[in-house]
Amino acid sequence: MSLLEREIHEQPMVLSRLLDLTRGTVESLAAAMRERDVRYIVIAARGTSDNAGVYAKYLFAAHNGLPVALTTPVLFTLYHQPPRLRDALVLGISQSGQSPDIVEVIREARRQSSLTAAITNDPSSPLAQAAEFVLDLHAGPEKAVAATKTYTASLTMLALLSAILGKDEERIAQLVQLPDAVAQTLEMTEDVIQQRVERYRYMEDCVVIGRGYNYATAFEIALKVKELTYVVAEAYSSADFMHGPMALIEPGFPVLVVAPDGVPFSNLLAFLKQLRERAAEILVISDRSEALEVARTAMPLPAHVPEWLSPVTAAVPGQLLALHLALAKDLDPDAPRGLTKVTVTK
Amino acid sequence: MSLLEREIHEQPMVLSRLLDLTRGTVESLAAAMRERDVRYIVIAARGTSDNAGVYAKYLFAAHNGLPVALTTPVLFTLYHQPPRLRDALVLGISQSGQSPDIVEVIREARRQSSLTAAITNDPSSPLAQAAEFVLDLHAGPEKAVAATKTYTASLTMLALLSAILGKDEERIAQLVQLPDAVAQTLEMTEDVIQQRVERYRYMEDCVVIGRGYNYATAFEIALKVKELTYVVAEAYSSADFMHGPMALIEPGFPVLVVAPDGVPFSNLLAFLKQLRERAAEILVISDRSEALEVARTAMPLPAHVPEWLSPVTAAVPGQLLALHLALAKDLDPDAPRGLTKVTVTK
Repeated sequence: MSLLEREIHEQPMVLSRLLDLTRGTVESLAAAMRERDVRYIVIAARGTSDNAGVYAKYLFAAHNGLPVALTTPVLFTLYHQPPRLRDALVLGISQSGQSPDIVEVIREARRQSSLTAAITNDPSSPLAQAAEFVLDLHAGPEKAVAATKTYTASLTMLALLSAILGKDEERIAQLVQLPDAVAQTLEMTEDVIQQRVERYRYMEDCVVIGRGYNYATAFEIALKVKELTYVVAEAYSSADFMHGPMALIEPGFPVLVVAPDGVPFSNLLAFLKQLRERAAEILVISDRSEALEVARTAMPLPAHVPEWLSPVTAAVPGQLLALHLALAKDLDPDAPRGLTKVTVTK
Repeated sequence: MSLLEREIHEQPMVLSRLLDLTRGTVESLAAAMRERDVRYIVIAARGTSDNAGVYAKYLFAAHNGLPVALTTPVLFTLYHQPPRLRDALVLGISQSGQSPDIVEVIREARRQSSLTAAITNDPSSPLAQAAEFVLDLHAGPEKAVAATKTYTASLTMLALLSAILGKDEERIAQLVQLPDAVAQTLEMTEDVIQQRVERYRYMEDCVVIGRGYNYATAFEIALKVKELTYVVAEAYSSADFMHGPMALIEPGFPVLVVAPDGVPFSNLLAFLKQLRERAAEILVISDRSEALEVARTAMPLPAHVPEWLSPVTAAVPGQLLALHLALAKDLDPDAPRGLTKVTVTK
């Protein structure tokens, strides 16, 4: 078994441990956010963690009324012209905690006396040392180059912070169910994906679509597919895709649509019908039969996961798809060409 | 002559008119921003205007200390869960001013008593009617489907607002030189591009690279190439590209690097050398001979344009490349397949 496969399967346990161990720290951070009257959140992250930041945009705006800005580290490093960060929570997300540019954003925020926090899998990392609050993912070492368990753990940590900040007991109760839902997703989809993946052995390009909370999921799945299988995978929101790229879809072009139940579902269903009219090759990740029925390759999700948490479960079939497609192509999922675990950016 | 070509050539005149006519309104908006102690900027935009928003991120952070968040209109429309926007300038950018979701962001911001402004080419549009301040681009009707003059005009408007807000006479003086620099760029590059473009008649994919201020330029050029020529063009920052995609570059793979003089120039030069080692097909837009020399296709920019304004001049060779490649492929640059001028998103 590859490291990647092992880490994908660790996710239910990782999320459950995270929810057990980090509640106290998250409560302290939430209290500090209230006390210091935080008015918006600035996130510094790269790659997979940046996709977690996209999720945070929807999460904190919709549930906590807080606008979220994804910052540009280059302003802090090369340009030495950082923005003023008063009234912000400045949040660095990095599983390794090693990215020097993310660390520099946090250091500058502290110089400006802003509230800072790090979401990281290494509480002794430079990022953790730089931040006032450290939200440790407790995910265990992530040895595969492609991040999986630290991605879903970062989403879960953000979700926990949002729920605790909102003092929302209902959402906290929903979070407690999440590890089981991820376990169920693994069980429901792995065989299906393993059987279906041969069909895509010679696929060269594809598109991944999401909307709302799962816009982040589309980006994360496209990234995993690119990293692990070298397929050109581009992510779009269905709204952007309808005005342009849609018209260029030729019969057989593969489009993976992330369409769990939720606010944008009826829009996504209409989108799927348009894809079918154009004879696209449709892959669907969903808990709704109306969506799964349209697909040539259907990846079912467990029902009853609320939309705000669905990016955690919906990422899993994407991880499995990338893993098994890599294996079908005789590629080593633990050693993708040209990637290293820690990226150092100046 | 196509409408697109005509509009590309109108740009020096459009920018010059904008600088003449809008200074008063921009000064009033800047005064309101100071008076109401704006702490950050929230931008709502789609497509080309969203790329102008990416430029704004660098511009207002570096020169005015203001963080910029690109917002997610779907939170305001489908979800009905907008964030709190107190202390923000909420800025809608849309050439047509018709996008209902951008209009809805501005309406919600006004309901929350936030300061609002619209950058639009139609002062009677719903967007203009919704906003407290209207920054009219005065670009004349844009009839070609692909936006060119309204893009550089939007950048120029943002640059003017930043300079006036900073009461920065030096930068205002630099802005006054910009229309001439754009005219010079058109003169210097159009023949070169027309001659070189045949080489790319059968190009299927390419990558466009930028860093810092010109990260936005990379996105805008990739968008124009996709819209007009159906080449798969993906934009990256050189930092992100080095950790991953770079290792996958095969000999002959086309990479367009936007590398005008400025803070990231030495990084971009090192990047170009790596590309050469991998025998990529290098295209460069730059005012520096060290960068142009590395290129198989060199698109020179006029010297002495300061970095913060270089996205305006650097976009122009990209527009011309997309135009002339469309013509070389016998495509109609005024009627790209599957695109309409006004996009209506719910």
